[in-house]
Amino acid sequence: MKLLRHGPAGAERPGLVWTDGTIRDLSGILPDVGGDALSDEGLARLREIDGAGLPVVAEDARLGPCVGGIGKFICIGLNYSDHAAETGAQVPPEPIIFMKANSAICGPNDPIIIPRGSVKTDWEVELAVIIGRKAKYVSEAEALTHVAGYAVANDVSERAFQAERSGQWTKGKSCDNFGQLGPWLVTRDEVADPQDLSLWLSVNGQKMQDGTTRTMVYGVAFLVSYLSQFMTLHPGDVISTGTPPGVGLGMKPPRFLKAGDVVELGVEGLGRQRQDVIADA
Amino acid sequence: MKLLRHGPAGAERPGLVWTDGTIRDLSGILPDVGGDALSDEGLARLREIDGAGLPVVAEDARLGPCVGGIGKFICIGLNYSDHAAETGAQVPPEPIIFMKANSAICGPNDPIIIPRGSVKTDWEVELAVIIGRKAKYVSEAEALTHVAGYAVANDVSERAFQAERSGQWTKGKSCDNFGQLGPWLVTRDEVADPQDLSLWLSVNGQKMQDGTTRTMVYGVAFLVSYLSQFMTLHPGDVISTGTPPGVGLGMKPPRFLKAGDVVELGVEGLGRQRQDVIADA
Repeated sequence: MKLLRHGPAGAERPGLVWTDGTIRDLSGILPDVGGDALSDEGLARLREIDGAGLPVVAEDARLGPCVGGIGKFICIGLNYSDHAAETGAQVPPEPIIFMKANSAICGPNDPIIIPRGSVKTDWEVELAVIIGRKAKYVSEAEALTHVAGYAVANDVSERAFQAERSGQWTKGKSCDNFGQLGPWLVTRDEVADPQDLSLWLSVNGQKMQDGTTRTMVYGVAFLVSYLSQFMTLHPGDVISTGTPPGVGLGMKPPRFLKAGDVVELGVEGLGRQRQDVIADA
Repeated sequence: MKLLRHGPAGAERPGLVWTDGTIRDLSGILPDVGGDALSDEGLARLREIDGAGLPVVAEDARLGPCVGGIGKFICIGLNYSDHAAETGAQVPPEPIIFMKANSAICGPNDPIIIPRGSVKTDWEVELAVIIGRKAKYVSEAEALTHVAGYAVANDVSERAFQAERSGQWTKGKSCDNFGQLGPWLVTRDEVADPQDLSLWLSVNGQKMQDGTTRTMVYGVAFLVSYLSQFMTLHPGDVISTGTPPGVGLGMKPPRFLKAGDVVELGVEGLGRQRQDVIADA
């Protein structure tokens, strides 16, 4: 099942992709894609719906972030060994975790906005994990049962803000429109193995990232278990699991985004995103 | 005006402290203390209410975090020069910012929960700033007009998680019940100068922190302006502005919290908090 949110920013309505490929509106069925709707029971109820009877959403409708009411957006740093190498960093002995401000989260095809003063805005295709059931001190063996599903994320990053403006990465990770999420949440049952998905990103049609989740240092089950040792994960929380090689910072010379660029990215089975790069007004 | 939220965790209702010292329930007036209610216009409407006609809330009612629907909880690191010194760190050339998970936020008198495996849970009394009006690229001169008010915060921190478990502070700052906020939001008009407030914290009756916001490196107006260069601040966002000297990590030898301890803290004019320290189940 593919769940999504459609409509203007801040006023999105729930929807799903029906078997005929159309998007159907779920507003008559549930308030939002989030919270209890993401539990195994909530998802089972949605599976019983006859989507053919639901209103069809216009093909050109804007898509919002595929989850609403996100409590926290946790990111994992340097989680692909070859990406760590390209940025000159060591693979960390434990996962590096940081937080992206919720205000950075936007729809999959919303523009990447280069903040004022930025000269190092960079891209990062990532596999995002959406929590479906509260998780605290869970084992790696049971971790995936707390996952509702998966989505594509772009962990847009301003490298100077991140690394050259006094400690902690938050500044370079939390700018507005620095967190495209979607197009949809693909439920866990439709992802046979989250550690065997290809993921890619191109800029102006040129392939920049072309990786696979097989080379993740810390896999999804480990990450959910690990994070749950530090804090409770709630339904609708998002974990973005790190990026494979090919970011602009790692190129020789480094290459960063400029207004007019077009970024496209995707994860196998989870759909694709397309973003125009624009300068902040 | 002192605004607060009362009732069970997750089901708090809005309230205010009336002139007779009683807490009055505002549920008939507004849905929550947050969002539009925090704008100058929203606060002006609340000031016209005759609190004497509102239901009295029981004196022993639990208080929740004084703001609901918090979008992001931004913290400032090493923002008192003498606190930086006690932890062996330099005063940063720009503010250090990091994010505390929203799931860590709790009521002012909710217990501090020592996470499993923690041996370095520490305290940090802080002045918290609550945004009332959207702020993006605002100047320092206009910054305070975007502030709804102020509150006491305890930026509880696990020092080993924060500094000894692979980069970024998030892990040590985001554990459940690591962000007591309240008892109430005191509106901006009642705080003559946010840079002239004493703040203190005691453990088992022994004064540990005894500082003043006069020694902040980066003041409130600067911080609001600075943060707004990186990301939009929305109504209900919280900025916790750093802690003065006297944290457990800075003692010789260091001293950390243990189950059974009682922590009390306050900021001049903003009320006080009291927390039992308990071990996680």
